[in-house]
Amino acid sequence: MTALIERPTLWVERRDTTAVVWLNRPDRLNAFTYGMRDDLVAAFDATDADDTVRAVVVTGTGRAFCAGADLEAGGDTFLPEDGVDGVPPDSGGVAALRVFESRKPVIMAINGPAAGVGVTMSLPGDVRIASDTAKFAFVFTRRGLVPEACSTWFLPRIVGMPTALRWTIAGSTVTADQALSAGLVSEVVPAAAVLDRALALADEFAAGTSPVSVALTRAMMWRMSACEDPRRAHAVESQMLYERGRSGDVREGVASFLEKRTPDFPDRVSTTVGDFDWTPRT
Amino acid sequence: MTALIERPTLWVERRDTTAVVWLNRPDRLNAFTYGMRDDLVAAFDATDADDTVRAVVVTGTGRAFCAGADLEAGGDTFLPEDGVDGVPPDSGGVAALRVFESRKPVIMAINGPAAGVGVTMSLPGDVRIASDTAKFAFVFTRRGLVPEACSTWFLPRIVGMPTALRWTIAGSTVTADQALSAGLVSEVVPAAAVLDRALALADEFAAGTSPVSVALTRAMMWRMSACEDPRRAHAVESQMLYERGRSGDVREGVASFLEKRTPDFPDRVSTTVGDFDWTPRT
Amino acid sequence: MTALIERPTLWVERRDTTAVVWLNRPDRLNAFTYGMRDDLVAAFDATDADDTVRAVVVTGTGRAFCAGADLEAGGDTFLPEDGVDGVPPDSGGVAALRVFESRKPVIMAINGPAAGVGVTMSLPGDVRIASDTAKFAFVFTRRGLVPEACSTWFLPRIVGMPTALRWTIAGSTVTADQALSAGLVSEVVPAAAVLDRALALADEFAAGTSPVSVALTRAMMWRMSACEDPRRAHAVESQMLYERGRSGDVREGVASFLEKRTPDFPDRVSTTVGDFDWTPRT
Repeated sequence: MTALIERPTLWVERRDTTAVVWLNRPDRLNAFTYGMRDDLVAAFDATDADDTVRAVVVTGTGRAFCAGADLEAGGDTFLPEDGVDGVPPDSGGVAALRVFESRKPVIMAINGPAAGVGVTMSLPGDVRIASDTAKFAFVFTRRGLVPEACSTWFLPRIVGMPTALRWTIAGSTVTADQALSAGLVSEVVPAAAVLDRALALADEFAAGTSPVSVALTRAMMWRMSACEDPRRAHAVESQMLYERGRSGDVREGVASFLEKRTPDFPDRVSTTVGDFDWTPRT
Repeated sequence: MTALIERPTLWVERRDTTAVVWLNRPDRLNAFTYGMRDDLVAAFDATDADDTVRAVVVTGTGRAFCAGADLEAGGDTFLPEDGVDGVPPDSGGVAALRVFESRKPVIMAINGPAAGVGVTMSLPGDVRIASDTAKFAFVFTRRGLVPEACSTWFLPRIVGMPTALRWTIAGSTVTADQALSAGLVSEVVPAAAVLDRALALADEFAAGTSPVSVALTRAMMWRMSACEDPRRAHAVESQMLYERGRSGDVREGVASFLEKRTPDFPDRVSTTVGDFDWTPRT
Repeated sequence: MTALIERPTLWVERRDTTAVVWLNRPDRLNAFTYGMRDDLVAAFDATDADDTVRAVVVTGTGRAFCAGADLEAGGDTFLPEDGVDGVPPDSGGVAALRVFESRKPVIMAINGPAAGVGVTMSLPGDVRIASDTAKFAFVFTRRGLVPEACSTWFLPRIVGMPTALRWTIAGSTVTADQALSAGLVSEVVPAAAVLDRALALADEFAAGTSPVSVALTRAMMWRMSACEDPRRAHAVESQMLYERGRSGDVREGVASFLEKRTPDFPDRVSTTVGDFDWTPRT
């Protein structure tokens, strides 16, 4: 096994064209800390920069996925970080937005219980696969907190508004099967099979697809779907098609299709894809 | 039974920590009038102001929930109110926005038929429970009208766009079971059981949760989910976590969790929660 | 059979109050061209202008619905049109936005395989009915392209974000049954029954409804549902109710209801419905 990077709270394993991010604080059930926030940002910076990585899987070592914020500091847990003045950006949101910005598809392999930010940071992933041992705990109102990690934006887009309201108001904990019924996860498998299913899906995303087209598709779908006006989507799609339509990728894509062979796309994410700073309105 | 308030078209009954709003024009199948609009606003003003109220249930006396706009005035029903100049705010929308602004979760206990504004004013509720005698009539195009009570915003968020389009274009009347399949209601029970199920759910929302966190969660979820940009949700969540993270509630929430006991949250909605006037864009 | 209009790539057949748009390049599996884009715009201009048309059905001649962009030009297919400077508007988006702007409900009768723009241009239709021989191919990432025809706006509204991401990232081809499960189509019938089912639904939309109310309902639902703030929906609904509430349609709608007879609405779309240029924000 080759580690792409190693950090205090996680390490990134290379498996062919997939990078597996292992949350690695098993003695604390992979509880979330400021350090894990920074390590997740570093992990996604590494997977974005490496053109041989086509997809990212996030999973946990030990029996849990992520137990939520580490409560070692007790009632002081949610005070601002030392040295931060004013209103600090929510840590979970920093991690979630980094997943959102990923240029590779992200598959959350939820190998066991997930609570609080352990659930909400998984929402910007493109797919969530759960172990039948997983539970999902939306505990915020039970701790005197509010939903975070941009979950007020992501959760209703995934499970619908009535379910999002009910779970977060009541502070519900739901089983893997309930999560499946609600659409929070796309499949439930035995714990031992979660990683293999996630890797198989990562391969499905990579096989026969253009890396640049995948990066752009992921970015456009989340962003344009949230616009007030479909003409905004039309403008961005027109620009993207104009650029893609002149690319080596599209010539190879059409040629390989007409010749009934596997495509070999020439364009690279690191050199072709610019910043996704598409402000919602021009 | 104690009445929290009594008004010409409804009265509000206290049941422990739940306020039950009884629409009370049974001889007119609880048809909606300008008076009922004003009485609903007054009812929610009262439940918001009373910190002992943790949830609101809305239901109807007699066999119907609400038969829609009272058509006693015949073809003049939808002319502007006497004394109102220019374009008056849609009455159903005034009621719906007041439910939307509620600082307590709202459970719609739909005890029988609901038509027109009788359906649409229920949409900003967090949960809808239906009697098996309920029907839902989206009659607008059959009367020469258009959907109202902000239903062009709420309905697609609840049942999805294809169902919202189909029901409102065709002017459909759907059964309780069809409403359940489409996600308009979360459960269907015999008529005699609707109120008890609603009260049980109200208790579930109240037990072990912080009143302030519930009020903020409800407000944030509806508003932030509709933003074009997740970074807007991140900014608002960061501000809320900053304030909640220093609160007595969070100290009690974490302490009670670590001590495995029921929390006793100190913060009160009436003194802690300010106006929810979060404009979508800064 | 009467043709409402005939164009090089399609013709429009009148069937009582329904206009059937037949995509008509069967030797090319009804593949999409710049000409078909222009012909679709002309077809919807004609159906909008004709007050005797109450609904539009779009279907294909031969065994396919639409095979996607015509690839006759090979790798040059996606270069800008001759004579167009700068970034041209995506052709699929031009067609999709014209369907979006239709003042009559649109039923997509998907009689066989649909690929690329053949799928995405169907998304602004109000209903999609599929033959059991239909397949839906989201091929964009496999050709080095990105999703188009405003599908980054429409697709998540119809099938939800997780499914939209998964299909478009992987470049999936899904069966009619998978499309039904995901909500992409509302029903699957044998190929020979697709048109009849679509015509029956068109009649359902027309029977007993006000043409003007249907046109406004369709326009408001798509547009207002995407607003950041429900108060925007309230403002537009209030204006529309003010105008409808004084109309001959509402007097006839209420009178016919109270008299338990079929309504005969006087207002006409061509003279009553103005431009739908409701900018999302004032």
